[in-house]
Amino acid sequence: MRDIDFAALEVGYDVPAIPGMDEADIQTPCLVLDLDALERNITKMGDFAKKMGVRHRVHGKMHKSVDVALLQERLGGSCGVCCQKVSEAEVFARGGIKDVLVSNQVRDPVKIDRLARLPKLGARTICCVDDLANVADLSEAAVRHGTQIECLVEIDCGAGRCGVTTTEAVIEIARPIDAADGLKFAGLQAYQGAMQHLDNYDDRKSKIEIAVAQVRDAVDGLKAVGLECDIVGGGGTGSYYFEGASGVYNELQCGSYAFMDADYGRILDKDGKRIDQGEWENALFILTSVMSHAKADKAIVDAGLKAQSVDSGLPVIFGRTDVAYVKCSDEHGVVADPDGVLKVNDKLRLVPGHCDPTCNVHDWYIGVRGGKVETLWPVSARGKAY
Amino acid sequence: MRDIDFAALEVGYDVPAIPGMDEADIQTPCLVLDLDALERNITKMGDFAKKMGVRHRVHGKMHKSVDVALLQERLGGSCGVCCQKVSEAEVFARGGIKDVLVSNQVRDPVKIDRLARLPKLGARTICCVDDLANVADLSEAAVRHGTQIECLVEIDCGAGRCGVTTTEAVIEIARPIDAADGLKFAGLQAYQGAMQHLDNYDDRKSKIEIAVAQVRDAVDGLKAVGLECDIVGGGGTGSYYFEGASGVYNELQCGSYAFMDADYGRILDKDGKRIDQGEWENALFILTSVMSHAKADKAIVDAGLKAQSVDSGLPVIFGRTDVAYVKCSDEHGVVADPDGVLKVNDKLRLVPGHCDPTCNVHDWYIGVRGGKVETLWPVSARGKAY
Repeated sequence: MRDIDFAALEVGYDVPAIPGMDEADIQTPCLVLDLDALERNITKMGDFAKKMGVRHRVHGKMHKSVDVALLQERLGGSCGVCCQKVSEAEVFARGGIKDVLVSNQVRDPVKIDRLARLPKLGARTICCVDDLANVADLSEAAVRHGTQIECLVEIDCGAGRCGVTTTEAVIEIARPIDAADGLKFAGLQAYQGAMQHLDNYDDRKSKIEIAVAQVRDAVDGLKAVGLECDIVGGGGTGSYYFEGASGVYNELQCGSYAFMDADYGRILDKDGKRIDQGEWENALFILTSVMSHAKADKAIVDAGLKAQSVDSGLPVIFGRTDVAYVKCSDEHGVVADPDGVLKVNDKLRLVPGHCDPTCNVHDWYIGVRGGKVETLWPVSARGKAY
Repeated sequence: MRDIDFAALEVGYDVPAIPGMDEADIQTPCLVLDLDALERNITKMGDFAKKMGVRHRVHGKMHKSVDVALLQERLGGSCGVCCQKVSEAEVFARGGIKDVLVSNQVRDPVKIDRLARLPKLGARTICCVDDLANVADLSEAAVRHGTQIECLVEIDCGAGRCGVTTTEAVIEIARPIDAADGLKFAGLQAYQGAMQHLDNYDDRKSKIEIAVAQVRDAVDGLKAVGLECDIVGGGGTGSYYFEGASGVYNELQCGSYAFMDADYGRILDKDGKRIDQGEWENALFILTSVMSHAKADKAIVDAGLKAQSVDSGLPVIFGRTDVAYVKCSDEHGVVADPDGVLKVNDKLRLVPGHCDPTCNVHDWYIGVRGGKVETLWPVSARGKAY
């Protein structure tokens, strides 16, 4: 057993680590951020946006962290945050983010009321609209609070979820927004979510070309009726270079690039290389420990379904080819260890299959650098689904 | 819009509902418990255990709720709680549960130290052991704190995770436990997790018969060396009647029966009937709202991967055959609505695919009865994965 001052060490009761401790002493399972890799990813995307002359509104729904969002502002020059829920927007606004887009529909009257209060926290407040019937409700709430809600009309450019599909429908919603008290027409939301994970670069490109044409038509149609788009937003980790070079989009909305995950990492860049092998670094890991090795060829680790989401596949063990995470149950992971190289209490870094819903089950990011815990950041908007 | 006193209503900032409000005003997505159904499920399982003359140690890893555990004690006569993590055990012990089993291995030195402190909170403290090397560490910690840890030797009777597989190995671990200062040999842990979800009753039965034979051999072998088993624990929602009638097991460890979920609900009882069609009631729901209906044949709802785990399949819409939840992304669910019967802000009750990891992403259970919110219970051990 390691030499540990148990009496002094209250770790585990509330937090899985304490700044200054060795990485080896972190309580598992928990999320670990490689701060060097994270900072490089953030800087790289910021530099790209700057070079292309577009803004980057980072997607906070991925990390749900005020600290990461502020780092993206500082190192990546981001113009603000987008997120998917009013409850997330409240967290970011309270945390000091001054420009917050709920890149989603807000329909429930209580949620609309909360949205209309957000500007009082000092944040520019933007949301999406895909239904004429929503305009009066948003306007009424903004007027009630004496605030302004900016509205983007959402275009469904391939994701098949929210959003309208024709320029006529866009204009039909944009005009009453422009005319409504308390509201401001601010542009278009057009995220093509369905193609982000297509492995092949050219497949992604051809999907985005369709979206870009659709968005360009809407921008032109709006201009013809006297409506300018301050924001034309979209783009993700699998497509940002297309939107960035489109000449139509002016705000990127990337999220996963900062942390990376196993599912995104598998898609290929224009040279046929996995994007986690050069374009982006794995900065997010689930740290897990071996807790049983009663069978010679398998190790049982302490990260199961309560420590991650497996919707996009099992996690991958970082930097190892001799062992593999092969099965996930509620609190256990089964790691194939054919050569019996693992021992009880050995730690492994897992790259989660899907970062967004994995981050959402944890309370803390443990920031590490050089083998030491440097910082703990709360997953500030964890659980903020409503 | 409904008539809502927005100024008075702070709902949503911290909690998705307030006791006394109408179910229609609950903020979604969130977890809803049908308290009548829950109480009937709990009472029914308690009555079964009583009739069979076995104890029921309810599995707290499913609900992670002190309130539900106390209800199971009061209505179901449960003898205590089992859970999978030391951090969960701490929550239950602090919440007033007096008999807590960590039905898992505890190997990390800090976790062992925390386990050894648990009796100071007034809780009988039990854990599992599947490795001789663990005994000295547990003993040392118990002695250090002047406490007692009771130990069950874990048998792998088919789950293929932790646990030893032979009676010889059981005895080899049990004897040093019995001899160690600060420890008490308390019996066997033998949960057959791999068969719980087999649809066919007879398939489950044949798997459990193998487990029962294995456990009986271990109990007899231990007796032959002078070691009695106070606890022989196991059994789940798909098998409890087998263990309960085995004459060998004396503690059941059921979890999902109380809430039910879509994946468990599909398994068949001895008459070939789904267990959610008579044996157990659906008491747990994800309440979700329609947030967009921009396409005529699909409604977009607000419960996606941040509101549930889809590891065991998509959720099922309760009580509806005209609409179906067909796709789940991070914050959206796509509901096929071929006849266009849904409207924006309509609410649906989803039966989650898998209750355990779904409960773990929520902060609150909203207890409803007769269309009104009766109570809010925290998911007390949510996120306690370490």
